Amino acid sequence: MKISALLTSAGINIGLCVLFLSLYSVLRKQPANVRVYFGRRIAEENERLRGAFILERFVPSTGWIVKALQCTEEEILAAAGLDAVVFNRILVFSIRIFSLAAVLCVFGILPLNYFGQDIKHVRIPSESLDIFTIGNVEVRSRWLWVHCVALYIISGVACILLYIEYKHIARLRLLHLTSATPNPSHFTVLVRGIPKTAKESCSDVVDDFFTKYHSSSYLFHQVVYKVGKVQKIMTGAKKAYKKFKHFTDETVDQGCRSITYRCCLCGASSNSFKLLNTECEQNRRKPDNESSLNLDDEECTAAFVFFKTRYAALVASEILQTTNPMKWVANLAPEPEDVYWSNLWLPYKQLWVRRIATLLGSIVFMFLFLVPVTFIQGLSQLEQLQQRLPFLRGILKKKYYMTQLVTGYLPSVILQIFLYTVAPIMMLFSTLEGPTSHSERKRSACCKVLYFTIWNIFFVTVLSGTVISQLSVLSSPKDIPIQLARAVPGQATFFITYVLTSGWASLSSELMQLFGLIWNFIRKYVLRMREDTEFVPSFPYHTEVPKVLLFGLLGFTCSVLAPLILPFLLVYFFLGYVVYRNQLLNVYRTRYDTGGLYWPIAHNTVIFSLVLTQVIGLGVFGLKESPVAAGFTIPLIILTLLFNQYCRNRLLPLFRTFPAQDLIDMDREDERSGRIDEIHHRLHSAYCQFPDTEDVPLEKIKIIGGDEEQGCSSGESTGKDTCVDPKMDLSHPTLKGLPVSRLRHAVRSITFLIRLQKRGLSE
Amino acid sequence: MKISALLTSAGINIGLCVLFLSLYSVLRKQPANVRVYFGRRIAEENERLRGAFILERFVPSTGWIVKALQCTEEEILAAAGLDAVVFNRILVFSIRIFSLAAVLCVFGILPLNYFGQDIKHVRIPSESLDIFTIGNVEVRSRWLWVHCVALYIISGVACILLYIEYKHIARLRLLHLTSATPNPSHFTVLVRGIPKTAKESCSDVVDDFFTKYHSSSYLFHQVVYKVGKVQKIMTGAKKAYKKFKHFTDETVDQGCRSITYRCCLCGASSNSFKLLNTECEQNRRKPDNESSLNLDDEECTAAFVFFKTRYAALVASEILQTTNPMKWVANLAPEPEDVYWSNLWLPYKQLWVRRIATLLGSIVFMFLFLVPVTFIQGLSQLEQLQQRLPFLRGILKKKYYMTQLVTGYLPSVILQIFLYTVAPIMMLFSTLEGPTSHSERKRSACCKVLYFTIWNIFFVTVLSGTVISQLSVLSSPKDIPIQLARAVPGQATFFITYVLTSGWASLSSELMQLFGLIWNFIRKYVLRMREDTEFVPSFPYHTEVPKVLLFGLLGFTCSVLAPLILPFLLVYFFLGYVVYRNQLLNVYRTRYDTGGLYWPIAHNTVIFSLVLTQVIGLGVFGLKESPVAAGFTIPLIILTLLFNQYCRNRLLPLFRTFPAQDLIDMDREDERSGRIDEIHHRLHSAYCQFPDTEDVPLEKIKIIGGDEEQGCSSGESTGKDTCVDPKMDLSHPTLKGLPVSRLRHAVRSITFLIRLQKRGLSE
Repeated sequence: MKISALLTSAGINIGLCVLFLSLYSVLRKQPANVRVYFGRRIAEENERLRGAFILERFVPSTGWIVKALQCTEEEILAAAGLDAVVFNRILVFSIRIFSLAAVLCVFGILPLNYFGQDIKHVRIPSESLDIFTIGNVEVRSRWLWVHCVALYIISGVACILLYIEYKHIARLRLLHLTSATPNPSHFTVLVRGIPKTAKESCSDVVDDFFTKYHSSSYLFHQVVYKVGKVQKIMTGAKKAYKKFKHFTDETVDQGCRSITYRCCLCGASSNSFKLLNTECEQNRRKPDNESSLNLDDEECTAAFVFFKTRYAALVASEILQTTNPMKWVANLAPEPEDVYWSNLWLPYKQLWVRRIATLLGSIVFMFLFLVPVTFIQGLSQLEQLQQRLPFLRGILKKKYYMTQLVTGYLPSVILQIFLYTVAPIMMLFSTLEGPTSHSERKRSACCKVLYFTIWNIFFVTVLSGTVISQLSVLSSPKDIPIQLARAVPGQATFFITYVLTSGWASLSSELMQLFGLIWNFIRKYVLRMREDTEFVPSFPYHTEVPKVLLFGLLGFTCSVLAPLILPFLLVYFFLGYVVYRNQLLNVYRTRYDTGGLYWPIAHNTVIFSLVLTQVIGLGVFGLKESPVAAGFTIPLIILTLLFNQYCRNRLLPLFRTFPAQDLIDMDREDERSGRIDEIHHRLHSAYCQFPDTEDVPLEKIKIIGGDEEQGCSSGESTGKDTCVDPKMDLSHPTLKGLPVSRLRHAVRSITFLIRLQKRGLSE
Repeated sequence: MKISALLTSAGINIGLCVLFLSLYSVLRKQPANVRVYFGRRIAEENERLRGAFILERFVPSTGWIVKALQCTEEEILAAAGLDAVVFNRILVFSIRIFSLAAVLCVFGILPLNYFGQDIKHVRIPSESLDIFTIGNVEVRSRWLWVHCVALYIISGVACILLYIEYKHIARLRLLHLTSATPNPSHFTVLVRGIPKTAKESCSDVVDDFFTKYHSSSYLFHQVVYKVGKVQKIMTGAKKAYKKFKHFTDETVDQGCRSITYRCCLCGASSNSFKLLNTECEQNRRKPDNESSLNLDDEECTAAFVFFKTRYAALVASEILQTTNPMKWVANLAPEPEDVYWSNLWLPYKQLWVRRIATLLGSIVFMFLFLVPVTFIQGLSQLEQLQQRLPFLRGILKKKYYMTQLVTGYLPSVILQIFLYTVAPIMMLFSTLEGPTSHSERKRSACCKVLYFTIWNIFFVTVLSGTVISQLSVLSSPKDIPIQLARAVPGQATFFITYVLTSGWASLSSELMQLFGLIWNFIRKYVLRMREDTEFVPSFPYHTEVPKVLLFGLLGFTCSVLAPLILPFLLVYFFLGYVVYRNQLLNVYRTRYDTGGLYWPIAHNTVIFSLVLTQVIGLGVFGLKESPVAAGFTIPLIILTLLFNQYCRNRLLPLFRTFPAQDLIDMDREDERSGRIDEIHHRLHSAYCQFPDTEDVPLEKIKIIGGDEEQGCSSGESTGKDTCVDPKMDLSHPTLKGLPVSRLRHAVRSITFLIRLQKRGLSE
């Protein structure tokens, strides 16, 4: 690939970027798209945007960039949670280290590479890109020590910056813990592997155990029910209920379409929804006495156990309870909104098998993915491809631009399309693994996608790109540094185009929210459905974190060897910084938070990238027969690994558990201020497995049904007529054996379903 | 190697074994050797052996074998601790699995191998040993499924037996925990990384912290002092004191030499020694008020913190105390006799560096060791050796027996001698690592020796033996199964001779205690020193566990491929069972115990051996072009690894911590029975850093000195004359700045030293 081809590619991408950014700055001002671009704000802040037609709306502007840059870390923390801050810090770290690397390598190393061999230089635009890599430096050059020094500086500064960030995030995590409003999850432990007994009900077993062994701090517990048939009916009913809400709102808001997104929150149906919740609370006061006694033993596999203090909950979660480590397994509970209810009832015994099975599954998937990737990578080596498929030669020889396009652009676009399938599949694997919280699921998917990305984009590209005919790349670990050293500079071309296409373009499309925009359009103008304020997506950390970290990996490995990539990468990170901040503030809603657990992943990846860079550097110095430079690289590798070990000892434990000192201080503070009773009181309603249908007395169903209709100013009274009689025949054979509380849910769900159907027909 | 050579070797070894065993049965009956062969009994049971001259003493007997076999597991547990039982179980497991394997392979597989190829068989004694390995089975044989089935049976039975043993030992570990007399270590936590403050003394800092955050359960604490100059003087004095004791006893016991080993225990000097200890106890009552206040802050890096209940100590040891994971690091304390005092004052910050450094050190040592081993292994391939060193050809060609000896015996003898240096070096590495207890140090050394043994004896032998000219054996991991499959059957000859020499002979020498015997002889008749009852060695688990596990590895890997090794191995295990039981009961003394922590090491090694066997099997079936057998081996590998994972989940946590349920039950039982106050009382004197010189008031020194002399019936009264005046000038410039308690120790030590010197001169 020549410089001119690179510039063509860069030109196309810069043009596209500018176009998309301008489009975005216009589209975001259109009231019709407000749900796409300000989902979080609408859902959380009830902000009202004016709907008047003014010219300003159609002029591209840069105000959003300024806004995104101006907002402080505290604002991001408040608006989008700690994970968003961590993601932001990853970008800040990348910008810092690659700014330094860019200055160092473009001005220090690029000239060395360019004039590395005594060859005749043509005009720069027609120069091959390989001239700018370390491949152009002659063997046994006396300038290789510059590369080695650059490697030292980059590694050293990266470690220092990493440590600063790690400490900063650890501090934020502790602040997040201590300064937040009392979090029910800190008082709660999720117990799994509860042993079954023939005599007692599950609830009694839990009660007995914790009364006996944690008597001083045990408060009460709440059993998790197995999600069975009844739940399926209820989920259906829930969906139906939402549709139903939508219909009633539709009739109300016929006249004032521009404020539809407000109606839904202050409207009648939401109120009745809330009423229900408080009733649920009142009914949950004595959960262990009433509801759970009626349930089958079979259905009990997990329970939330509540403690008087945070410290007691921590202690219960850390110690081994009994002589069987697979019984009475206690872990700190996830936050109420974070609980992944449908996994809670999984038997604890199964989990390790599931974990291994999904691990194997993801590895198999990773390797099967090689097939398309290997083929695509062949495209960037046109000569090899032409040798293998001779009929292509005629086509490609004729058109120069065709060749340019195929080598410069096509491979990464096709790769990109394939990669879109990865995240959902890894998410599926993570779900099967059996995590108990949404955030854990996403974090696990993030790791899987990260390994996948690094393996399939970096290693396979590097190895298959150069040795396309030879599949036994893994046969000799000793030669890997040498092989990488040969391959990486050669593949720098591909990586630069990858940054241009995948990096820049994906940022633009992330900003534009193309899918959201189109879907919003179809919903509104084709399907004529009402807008859904409830559904605001949460930030896809599991795809974005690996993406940013991969670019970091490319940057580190290419920095010294092929520094031409760094300016492009730096543009990516700057753009990403602005775009992601904007998206976090405006588009995505934070429902759950891992509490900064993405940082250790980022840290490990950066360390891996550094060590890989150093190993490749070692190989290159070996190839160039520079024993001094190679010799000096070995202590650098050791120092980097030692630094990593220090961080693991000094900071990682803070991300695995909470320090007792802080928890005890918080407990004492709460006790002194008398807030503790209020907190205990609130714990009763914190975890609600069936939030909108829990334990409603049969007699109340009608009243609630009435409530809903009362709230709607123009509601028809057909609802009451179609309502199933709550005193229906409970002795029907199909209903026999089901516990009373479940029947209540079922009755209620069916009532809604029937009512909805009638209503749908009457309209 | 031919069958006849093997039989020669076996004959030599059997003869040696019988000779040694007979010698042992005679020597053990001689009163002069009683200290060598009954060290534990003498030290613990005060047993008296008659000294009369009777003929019976010089007739070989087998009574000791019967005794060793008859003793039950409970007796071993009581006499030698849980580690001895674990070691015993490793032997029992090996006997069981290899009995099965021997029956299966000798009767099922050996004939198949022998008649595997359609070749002309010569007389069996002249037959090459390779005829009996799988190497003799022809390619694509239809009998290879028998090997595969045997592999399945052996792996399956091994897993079942492993699980049974694991469960049994976990149960014993819990019984050991609950049924034992109240153990002070269960109430105690060793705290390291205590932050320094300028204002407060270290003791106050510890007191403040635990009073604040563990107020309900904190009892008191005891600071660990840094071992400095004073301690060095004291160690010297201690040695001198022992010598001094020896001299006084010598004069007492001139007439009754045959009961010398009793005198030492009921004699006067021991009594005065005990007196001292009780005074130490009384003075330790208020350690936090008196002694520690006087000490420099610099000297405080660790402290023992005592809690009211076992559960509280467990909780304190499991949780993260503060926001800095390298401060206030709490771990359950080792048992008082097990504490490795000289490592306690190491700064906690250093430990991770030390751990990495020793790891690197041991790896380097492992690879440097290759040089002699590679050379030695060359000896067993005489043909290759002759090619390389042509001058040898003449010598070796001439003498047939010479060749026999060199190939059959010499290599393993030389290897054995080299191996004797390994254990002390690994022990040194483990000491540098900074463990806080003797048992941890030994366990760590055991792991290192194990890795060393497996790498240097198994892998290097296998790989260098076959590919002696090719050093790049590690270059291709994909080919390792194939390479091992080629090498292992070829090296079976060496392994059989290794079992004969290293296995059988080392058992005999272990039983004979050659070093002990010679040393005892020299001490008694050459140096004319008095016998030392204090020094009884503890069992060298760090050399014996790896040895037994290595033979297990050899057994598994050779079982299906070269079954001829199994009978020899089985003899080794039977002999080992008898010998080690005898040694554990009679010779070694158990001062400290890991509580069964050797079992997870053994378990992992057996799993590793099984998987290695299966991988080699896979390679062999691949070489023999039997896709069915190879295909069926892959699920076996997966199943074995799954089994291992299950054990890690189900049983391993019990070896890492204690279950809270049992501790709480024990605490309650103690509280109900009122024993708890007595236990708390005893905690004060449990951990004594300077056991025999702690905090003795200055005025008492003379009285104690007098005591010693009073006890000896024929003691001279010279001691009192040479005693230094305890009211010596404490304002001397060299003594300034030293705390008073230290001065007391110093004064006392010097007193003894001077007294001893005078006495030595007067004799």
